[in-house]
Amino acid sequence: MGSIMKMEAALLALPLVVSILYRENTFLSFLIPMVLLFGFGFFLTRKKLTNQAIYAKEGLVLVGISWIVISLFGSLPFIISGEIPHVVDAFFETVSGFTTTGASILMNVETMTKGMLFWRSLTHWIGGMGVLVFVLALMPQTNGRSIYVLKAESPGPQVGKLTSKVRHTARILYGIYIALTITQIILLAFKIPLFDSIVHSFATAGTGGFSILNQSVGGYNSVYVEVVVTVFMLLFGTNFTLFYFILIGDIKKVFKNEEFKWYVGIVVVAVVLVTINLIHIYGNIAESLRYSSFQVASIITTTGFATVDFNTWPSFSKIILVSLMFVGASAGSTGGGMKVSRIILYVKSLFKEIRYSIRPREISTVKFNHKAVEPVIMEGLIGYLIAYIAIIVVGVLILSIEDHDLVTNFTAIIATFNNVGPGLNIVGPVGNYAVFSNLSKITLSIVMLAGRLEIFPILILFSPFTWKKN
Amino acid sequence: MGSIMKMEAALLALPLVVSILYRENTFLSFLIPMVLLFGFGFFLTRKKLTNQAIYAKEGLVLVGISWIVISLFGSLPFIISGEIPHVVDAFFETVSGFTTTGASILMNVETMTKGMLFWRSLTHWIGGMGVLVFVLALMPQTNGRSIYVLKAESPGPQVGKLTSKVRHTARILYGIYIALTITQIILLAFKIPLFDSIVHSFATAGTGGFSILNQSVGGYNSVYVEVVVTVFMLLFGTNFTLFYFILIGDIKKVFKNEEFKWYVGIVVVAVVLVTINLIHIYGNIAESLRYSSFQVASIITTTGFATVDFNTWPSFSKIILVSLMFVGASAGSTGGGMKVSRIILYVKSLFKEIRYSIRPREISTVKFNHKAVEPVIMEGLIGYLIAYIAIIVVGVLILSIEDHDLVTNFTAIIATFNNVGPGLNIVGPVGNYAVFSNLSKITLSIVMLAGRLEIFPILILFSPFTWKKN
Repeated sequence: MGSIMKMEAALLALPLVVSILYRENTFLSFLIPMVLLFGFGFFLTRKKLTNQAIYAKEGLVLVGISWIVISLFGSLPFIISGEIPHVVDAFFETVSGFTTTGASILMNVETMTKGMLFWRSLTHWIGGMGVLVFVLALMPQTNGRSIYVLKAESPGPQVGKLTSKVRHTARILYGIYIALTITQIILLAFKIPLFDSIVHSFATAGTGGFSILNQSVGGYNSVYVEVVVTVFMLLFGTNFTLFYFILIGDIKKVFKNEEFKWYVGIVVVAVVLVTINLIHIYGNIAESLRYSSFQVASIITTTGFATVDFNTWPSFSKIILVSLMFVGASAGSTGGGMKVSRIILYVKSLFKEIRYSIRPREISTVKFNHKAVEPVIMEGLIGYLIAYIAIIVVGVLILSIEDHDLVTNFTAIIATFNNVGPGLNIVGPVGNYAVFSNLSKITLSIVMLAGRLEIFPILILFSPFTWKKN
Repeated sequence: MGSIMKMEAALLALPLVVSILYRENTFLSFLIPMVLLFGFGFFLTRKKLTNQAIYAKEGLVLVGISWIVISLFGSLPFIISGEIPHVVDAFFETVSGFTTTGASILMNVETMTKGMLFWRSLTHWIGGMGVLVFVLALMPQTNGRSIYVLKAESPGPQVGKLTSKVRHTARILYGIYIALTITQIILLAFKIPLFDSIVHSFATAGTGGFSILNQSVGGYNSVYVEVVVTVFMLLFGTNFTLFYFILIGDIKKVFKNEEFKWYVGIVVVAVVLVTINLIHIYGNIAESLRYSSFQVASIITTTGFATVDFNTWPSFSKIILVSLMFVGASAGSTGGGMKVSRIILYVKSLFKEIRYSIRPREISTVKFNHKAVEPVIMEGLIGYLIAYIAIIVVGVLILSIEDHDLVTNFTAIIATFNNVGPGLNIVGPVGNYAVFSNLSKITLSIVMLAGRLEIFPILILFSPFTWKKN
């Protein structure tokens, strides 16, 4: 925990530098939280632990608490500078950043200082790959138990170590992440200012979606920018293990990967359906394809950039986008949602169940990537699905205390829980989350954290069972 | 199958008699389908079967096909009389009747003849307890395998035989069903005409919801009628096994029954929440309680009667009603939805999963009514949940090809799939399903059948795997 706080203090130096470069008077807004974080961090890391072991429970609790703590400290620059004066709003925006949701309470981002905008986008980049994974990658030594931290923070039903050491795995992942981000920054810089290029690349890399334009990526009105962003959104929504396979020259494994095939398949089918549905609106296939491919990529990867107000699209396209919010990106990517691999496993269990009801005596197992899925993984999937539904029901119920329309309430929960960002109606691409009450904003913040951390680290914090002595 | 067709022919005699009593010229509209059904039925029952055994697969397929066949023949009176001239509309209305959904495509029911109204409500009564269970109860002899038919048609995750013989179980269930229906008819007849009393009792007993007034039960504007209907909706939404326990004097078992306690608890909590939410609309607690208790009972039991247009209620109350549509009534009742017992088991598995993630080495099992739930039942629950979600997604997607609003599309699927009837917006309590295209109406009909038969009998009809030779 101490290491995490020191790490955040170090990261705050980056927007501080930006603010100095642009001669903005937000120097203290970054320095104060830095000093606080470093102070607490120093104090905590000096304390000798009586028991160093991290098991499943400690891993989950550590991850849950860490994310809340870094969000609280991360919101201080916004509060101190007065650019987001309200505490709940600042917390919401920071959680939205770290969880790579990209839901905003800001009516007008274009009036903010560069330093703040940089910090806001940087939270996406840090949160995308994982705050604790970052710490693991930097730590000089980690013990074998730290796999529990990686497991608790990494998206997807199964976490494999790429190499025998957790720290090596974390470093390889971050290496790939940094390389891809730099490539995107360079490609975008051909067309838009370097600052814009950096912050939009951060938001793409983390599949976050914060933009520095009120009209999001649509504000550049450039096909080149849209194509680059679309391609990189899809790349960051891919399982990073596949990039590792390419690095070590095992390209065959990429095309044999079942999740990758489904991921590509779902994107293609969704783009085709939405394009056809939109032809009568945009008049021709080219325009229609341009908007549909960007939006489909943005939603399935749970980035949440927009080039158009899809709230005005026909119902069919909207339903497809809402469905994609649930699906989400690949496991082991920076994207949110249920993850394509889970969807595959759910569909396969359904077919297994149909076969079972016809021939109860035949034994069949669910296979994934040509291997039988262990029963403990299947059980975890079920627990996840039930918890997933429970959070949506409770979330929508709390939100509906305010009397907004049902589509707003429902898609606000869906879009934050799956870390997408924009929903429909009031929270659509041209709207924002400012209208909600404090209760709703706190609820949505918890829902974003639950979504990013795949529910259990957050659920466990609220469970009295966790805090009982063994 | 032959027996089922002969049974439907016999049942059509009832509306025929009604039409004669009221001197209506719909004589042939009932006689022609009767002759057809009896003819086919006679032909089929004469055929000697080479293999009499009914296993799981045969049970499911028989139930699926039977329901489609009786709905097709059951729609003939509406078509022949011209009172519902369009084939798809008549099929929709009949499926809605047999599945006890109560969704209607009729703009004005009050202009229909008594005979047709009687038949429409009778389909609720027959469908409520189960068409095949009815045949089983009447058949002179059944073999041990007929439990598969009972299992395939009866709602809920577990089907227990009350006595050692399936036929006896079916007869006891129908005995209780008839006794309760007659009691309600008598109680209602104190206040409204006998005909009205009979058809509304049919609709209550089956938890269907067809009314013969355009304003549904609200049209009587009588607190007495509303209270009687509310009480009986809740009774018909109770597991019939509990009535059997009362009959044999084992009342303790009723109050020990876990599903019953939750069922009562959910109703009470929902009524209290909705009542509080409505006070500012109706001005006082009494009015607010009157409308909320009727509507909560109507929705959780999936009856679908209305005394007020809850579409105009605040979001919070609407979300509670929509949530109750998913919950549904008790297993082993005539109601639809997921069933309270499934919800209990899902919630319990969630807690089990939370405990597991904290202490992976502790072994825990899910208990229901103080007994450990078998793994095969738990697996079935998961299959059901995934299939349930899949049908909603596909259904909403097909419906959204027509460009109605999202709330209409979503609640139309939810309200038909859970056999409730009214949804929100266009398909709200004062609206109806006439606006939809033929494709949507057929989709909704299949969804109603899938909901009533708990998905698998219908899913299996569409699975190529079923039709392969062993």
